[in-house]
Amino acid sequence: MSLNGNVVVAQGGGPTAVINESLVGVVLESRKFAQINRVYGALGGVRGIINEDFLDLTQETTHNLEEVAKTPSSALLSTRDKPDEKYCKEIFDVFKAHNVRYFFYIGGNDSVGTVDIVNRYAKTSGYDFRAIHIPKTIDNDIVLTDHTPGFGSAAKFVAQSFIGLNLDNRALPGIHIGVVMGRNSGFLTAASVLAKKYPDDGPHLIYMPERHFCIDSFVSDVKQMYDKYGRCVVAVSEGIADENGVPIAQKLGSTERDAHGNLMLSQTDLGELLVGHIKRTINTERVRSDTFGYLQRSFGLCISEVDQYEAREAGEKAAQFSIWHDRDGSISLSRIGDYAINYKLQRLEDVANRIKVMDDSFISSAGNHVTEEFKNYIRPLVGSGLRDGQRLIAPPVEKLLNR
Amino acid sequence: MSLNGNVVVAQGGGPTAVINESLVGVVLESRKFAQINRVYGALGGVRGIINEDFLDLTQETTHNLEEVAKTPSSALLSTRDKPDEKYCKEIFDVFKAHNVRYFFYIGGNDSVGTVDIVNRYAKTSGYDFRAIHIPKTIDNDIVLTDHTPGFGSAAKFVAQSFIGLNLDNRALPGIHIGVVMGRNSGFLTAASVLAKKYPDDGPHLIYMPERHFCIDSFVSDVKQMYDKYGRCVVAVSEGIADENGVPIAQKLGSTERDAHGNLMLSQTDLGELLVGHIKRTINTERVRSDTFGYLQRSFGLCISEVDQYEAREAGEKAAQFSIWHDRDGSISLSRIGDYAINYKLQRLEDVANRIKVMDDSFISSAGNHVTEEFKNYIRPLVGSGLRDGQRLIAPPVEKLLNR
Repeated sequence: MSLNGNVVVAQGGGPTAVINESLVGVVLESRKFAQINRVYGALGGVRGIINEDFLDLTQETTHNLEEVAKTPSSALLSTRDKPDEKYCKEIFDVFKAHNVRYFFYIGGNDSVGTVDIVNRYAKTSGYDFRAIHIPKTIDNDIVLTDHTPGFGSAAKFVAQSFIGLNLDNRALPGIHIGVVMGRNSGFLTAASVLAKKYPDDGPHLIYMPERHFCIDSFVSDVKQMYDKYGRCVVAVSEGIADENGVPIAQKLGSTERDAHGNLMLSQTDLGELLVGHIKRTINTERVRSDTFGYLQRSFGLCISEVDQYEAREAGEKAAQFSIWHDRDGSISLSRIGDYAINYKLQRLEDVANRIKVMDDSFISSAGNHVTEEFKNYIRPLVGSGLRDGQRLIAPPVEKLLNR
Repeated sequence: MSLNGNVVVAQGGGPTAVINESLVGVVLESRKFAQINRVYGALGGVRGIINEDFLDLTQETTHNLEEVAKTPSSALLSTRDKPDEKYCKEIFDVFKAHNVRYFFYIGGNDSVGTVDIVNRYAKTSGYDFRAIHIPKTIDNDIVLTDHTPGFGSAAKFVAQSFIGLNLDNRALPGIHIGVVMGRNSGFLTAASVLAKKYPDDGPHLIYMPERHFCIDSFVSDVKQMYDKYGRCVVAVSEGIADENGVPIAQKLGSTERDAHGNLMLSQTDLGELLVGHIKRTINTERVRSDTFGYLQRSFGLCISEVDQYEAREAGEKAAQFSIWHDRDGSISLSRIGDYAINYKLQRLEDVANRIKVMDDSFISSAGNHVTEEFKNYIRPLVGSGLRDGQRLIAPPVEKLLNR
C-alpha cells in the first residue's frame, strides 16, 4: 500500500515547447488517486519549495490545465539552483510541514542530479518519500532513454528553419551557416538533415560536437560544395571544438583579424566568426549566418504531436510508477519497432551526472554529415506536418537568341 | 481589345513566405485568357530574361502549382540586379523574340523601380506592352498600399517568436533583446506587440527606426521595466540609428570595451552589443539576445492565411488589370472597414523609389512602444492561429513555516 500525503511537482532548467504537457500529465494523473490529498506546484523549481511558494493545482480547472499543457516554457517557472546538503534540509523541512510524500521534478541533466540528491537525503533521514525525475531537454542528451521529451519539437523547429534557409539560399545563392543549440551533443544540429528533400538541397554539411572541428577541413568542405552546387548551406552546433577541446568561437575570436587588419578581440558569435573566416579564404560574395538561439526551444507553432503526447505520458507514468508502485527513478522512453514507446523507470544514480552524445553510427565517416540510420532514428520524433518545399517541374523554353 | 502574345512572370529581391502565391495567381489567371498563348517563368528575376532562362509554366500541372504556392521563397529564384538602359535593351530583344506582351514582376522597392524602367523603355521604343508590379516585402515599406503581401506572415513569425521569448524570460527571468529585420521601417519589429497577452507580458519595450535611438534612454527604459517586472523583454529593429543617422551597431561597436577593457573592434552583432552595454550599466546577471535573421522570411509553419490569399489575389488581379483592362501599374491593397481588401492599381512612378515608414499614430509618444491604433492595424494581417500562452490560475497554498 502506497503512501498517503501530498504531491509536489516542479520544473527546473531551460524550458521546452512541451514541458507543460509533463506537468499536466502529473497533475491530472495524481488527482485520480485516493491517497493523494493535494497536488502542489512549486513556483521556480526547488527554489519555490524552500520558499514555500506553492500553487494548489488540485483547484486548477481541467480546461485551463489543457491550455497550459499546449503552452511552451515552464508554467511553474524555473531555476538553475542545484541543492546542496543544507538546501536539502530546508526542502525537507517544508515537505514535512506540508506532508509531501511524492516529488516530481521535470528537468534535464541538472534536475535528475537534484532528484537523486533529494531522494538520498530522504532515505538517510528516514523520511518515507518517493521522488521521480521526468526528463525534458531540447538537446536530447540524457542517458538510458531513446530520446527526451522536448527534443522532437525543437528538432522540428530546426528542420523547418533549414527548409526555409535552403529555399532562401537557392533563390539568392551563397553560403549560409545556421548555428544550432547543443554544447556537447549534436542531435539538434543533426535534425537539420530533415530539410533535405531534393538531392541538391541543404544542409550540405552538418558539424556536430561529437567530432573535432578542423577549420581547414571546414573551409575545404564548404568550397567543394560551393563548387558543386553554386551554393552551400551548413548546419553547425554551437558546441564545436578543436582536438584540444578549445571552442571554435574562442579560437577564431582570438586569432582572426577584421577587414582592416585589426585583431578581433571580443567577437563571440560563432556564426559571424565562421562567415568572416570563409570570406577571407573563399572568393565569394554572399556569406551569411543565423544563430537560432532561444527561438528553437519555445516556438508554439512548430510542436511535434509525438513529442507532445510522449511528454504527457511521461508525466502520467511518473505518477503511476510512484503512487501505484511505490518506486523512485527517472522516466525513460524505450523504442519499440518503427515506432512505439514503452515507458520505464531508470535508477536515478544511473542517469545523474552523465551526458548522452550521438552514436557513431549516426555520424558520417567524414564527420561532416549524418547517416541514413540517424534519419530513421529522428523521423518519428518530429511527428507530422513538417512543411517541405515543392519545386516547379515545367519544361524549359527553347532559346531563340542564344546569346 | 487587349494584346495577343505571351506572358513573362518573374520574382526579384529577398523572398517571403507567400511570394509563390502571387506567382501562382498570375499563372493560373493568365492561362484562362484566349489572348495568351504561353506563360513563361523567368529563372532568377530580370537576369533570367536576358539569359532566356524561361520555364513554360503553361505546361505546369495545377496540383504542382498549388504545392509551389504553399512553399516559401521564390520558386523562380531571384536576383538583386537593377537594369540600366543597356540591360533594358537586352530584355526587349528577348521579349520581342518571344512575343512577350505582358510582364509581371513580383518584388519589393527595387523591383517596382525595375518595372517602371522597363515600362518606360517599352513606351519610348514603341513596343506595345503591359507591365505590372506585384508587391511583396516582409518589411511592409511600399507606399500607397495599406500593407504588402509577405508582411503578415513575417509579422506572425515575429509575434510567435516573442510569445516564446516572453514565456522563456518569465520562467528564467532576466533581460532579453530580440533583433528584428527592417532597416528603415519598424512595422515588423512593432508586430512583436501581438505577443502581449497578460499585462506584464513582454515585449516591454519596442524600438523602431522611425525614432532616433538614444542609448542612455534605452538603458534607463530597460532599468525601469526590470525594476517593475523583475525582467524585461525588448524588441529592437536592426535599423535603429542615432539622431545623426549613425547605426547603433556601428556606434556601440566602435566605442565599447569588453570585460578586459579591450576595445571591441569588429563586433557587428547589434543584439550582443546592446547586451554588452546593458551588462556594463545595469547590475543584473542574465542578459541575452536573439537575432531573428533569415528565419523570419521563409518559415513554412507560421504563415498567415490572410497574407496567403491576399498574395494570391494580388497575382490574379495583376493578370486581370493588364490582360482585360490593358493597364500598367503597381498592385495596391486598400483596406475597407475591419476588415476587407480592395485591389487597386497605382502608377509605377508614384510607387518607385519611395519607402513607407510607420505613421506617427502607430508609435507611442515616448517612442519606445506602439499604440492601440497599430494593434488594430496589424491584427487582421497575421490571420488566425497565433498560439498564445496560458498561465496557471490555481490559488497559492498557505505557508506553514513562513521562514
